Amino acid sequence: MRVIVNRHQAAHAPPQETDNGLPVPPWEVPDRVAAIRAALEVRGGFVFEDAPPGDADAVTGLHDPAYVTYLRETGAELAKARGAAPRFVVPSVFPFGPAPRVRGGRAARGGYCFDTFTPITAGTYAAALGGAAAALRAADLVAGGGDRAVYVLTRPPGHHAEKARCGGYSYLNNAALAADRLSKLGPVAVLDLDVHHGNGTQHLFYHRADVLTVSVHGDPELLFPYFSGFEDETGTGPGLGFNRNLPLPPGTGERKYRPALETALEVVSGFRPAFVVVSFGVDSHEADPIGGFRLPTEYFAKMGAGVRQSGVPVVVVQEGGYNCDVLGACAAKFLGGLEGTTGTSA
Amino acid sequence: MRVIVNRHQAAHAPPQETDNGLPVPPWEVPDRVAAIRAALEVRGGFVFEDAPPGDADAVTGLHDPAYVTYLRETGAELAKARGAAPRFVVPSVFPFGPAPRVRGGRAARGGYCFDTFTPITAGTYAAALGGAAAALRAADLVAGGGDRAVYVLTRPPGHHAEKARCGGYSYLNNAALAADRLSKLGPVAVLDLDVHHGNGTQHLFYHRADVLTVSVHGDPELLFPYFSGFEDETGTGPGLGFNRNLPLPPGTGERKYRPALETALEVVSGFRPAFVVVSFGVDSHEADPIGGFRLPTEYFAKMGAGVRQSGVPVVVVQEGGYNCDVLGACAAKFLGGLEGTTGTSA
Repeated sequence: MRVIVNRHQAAHAPPQETDNGLPVPPWEVPDRVAAIRAALEVRGGFVFEDAPPGDADAVTGLHDPAYVTYLRETGAELAKARGAAPRFVVPSVFPFGPAPRVRGGRAARGGYCFDTFTPITAGTYAAALGGAAAALRAADLVAGGGDRAVYVLTRPPGHHAEKARCGGYSYLNNAALAADRLSKLGPVAVLDLDVHHGNGTQHLFYHRADVLTVSVHGDPELLFPYFSGFEDETGTGPGLGFNRNLPLPPGTGERKYRPALETALEVVSGFRPAFVVVSFGVDSHEADPIGGFRLPTEYFAKMGAGVRQSGVPVVVVQEGGYNCDVLGACAAKFLGGLEGTTGTSA
Repeated sequence: MRVIVNRHQAAHAPPQETDNGLPVPPWEVPDRVAAIRAALEVRGGFVFEDAPPGDADAVTGLHDPAYVTYLRETGAELAKARGAAPRFVVPSVFPFGPAPRVRGGRAARGGYCFDTFTPITAGTYAAALGGAAAALRAADLVAGGGDRAVYVLTRPPGHHAEKARCGGYSYLNNAALAADRLSKLGPVAVLDLDVHHGNGTQHLFYHRADVLTVSVHGDPELLFPYFSGFEDETGTGPGLGFNRNLPLPPGTGERKYRPALETALEVVSGFRPAFVVVSFGVDSHEADPIGGFRLPTEYFAKMGAGVRQSGVPVVVVQEGGYNCDVLGACAAKFLGGLEGTTGTSA
């Protein structure tokens, strides 16, 4: 299986995230990609390929151009910072309401972000754009017909990124960008298996019938992102009926996860997609520090085998998963299941 | 002059505020009220009266009852916290958009707040409700006709508090509550002289013609609250034409402030109010650590004398001002000017 690597990922390495007004060590770190790559290299059977250079024009079809400019310019200003100037930007003020006025400056920070977990650093834009380029390359590969499955090895994650807001460690929505590109060729199903609901992906396609979004995740009443991912969110306008959320309670293990995944796969099959894009997270693993689910490593092979049953070309985009000790093994299991080399039924 | 004192103010003493994701020492501290009271006692001529007990029903006319309940319950939970549990609540996730879904839990934190400067502690609700009670008592006193001017000595401030959101160190909008009560008796003008725009007050009365809101403040493109206070915000519906913003650039001193204040006072006079409520801040003083204006202490007497020219009963509500060394002197000057005991023309 081909693995498209975002070689700019380590340019994004914020020193902290902020929770309840206090800095805490970041969970979303460059080592995550290193850990996965090492495990895949040990397992063998993967061909690693660097993503092509990033291209802002390729992301402004889905993302607001002003937001993309904001990410780039904020990073450029931080790169010029000297002395005691801060090395990252976290919003302090969040404009609100139906049409908040944002004329730049500090209001823009909160206007383009929805949490305090997602700092912008000097290297964020390069890393995010590199991830987008990797996902688009993977989409082009499966679109070309030569690859049945391609894995996008990248960070920061993307599925929380909205049209014009970062949040949830996400800046550009890699999976959504891949799905949008593939949607020019046929119907696309996005299956989000990260333990956190992919609010950005849901919202980017909420009004569209040509991209189905299906997500299995922790109940947003108790788990990030809190404001999105409820069962009754089913799409709007032409998109009505083309969004499906399957929230699960904290502590969910294989027994509860399996029927939700089966339902998700049935919904995907029923849509008869030409392509499937998987937002793949390992934060549903029992050893994840923030997910709260209890899936064992072996189960990730079954998840991959389940996705294989769709029978169509698949792009797998790496999203979350914050225990570097299990990330690589779980990714290897999942991709093995997807290839059919280690698969058992989900 | 009667001074209504919020004796619960010190119950609210957050240990920090959060700026750019990092904790910094709080500017908005209990000593602010102590400093003002001491200066007024030295000057003499003031009668100090404790505010009556707070009453939640008295604030839910303007504020969303669910928001008031959130403040109370969050404080109650913090009061029960033991061990290493946090002693304050600052939102990490801010739901956004026209109708964000907030089902309680951590989404509520960001749904009911718009910044990271405004922590909720175990004592916040008591202090905020005490301030509201003080402002309402002052309104009743001027409504009764016995007092020409009453000063509300309170903190935390109120003018940034929205219908259902805290922010800008504000939880309940004391000045707006006083104005709303007085509006039952006749037209009310709220004159906001804090250096920061009173977004909460503006929004609470934006659709109303019976309460005029006029504000002189630092340009929101560069100063908190950033998203509100622009010159072209003039009201909506029946309230169109009954909101006036006079933003001024950083570094504004007496020369630039004076014509803006004169315009503000003319707008107030032209409205022919039965009562004036002043949101009084000392953060426009040259020694304020965060305001960026350059008004000298003496000028506050002229501000008070200017307000005196309205000729109608006045409630003065203390808002910001973060240099405890000048707070008392400026409040004494302003109130002296308002009484006509130290006044010169603005």
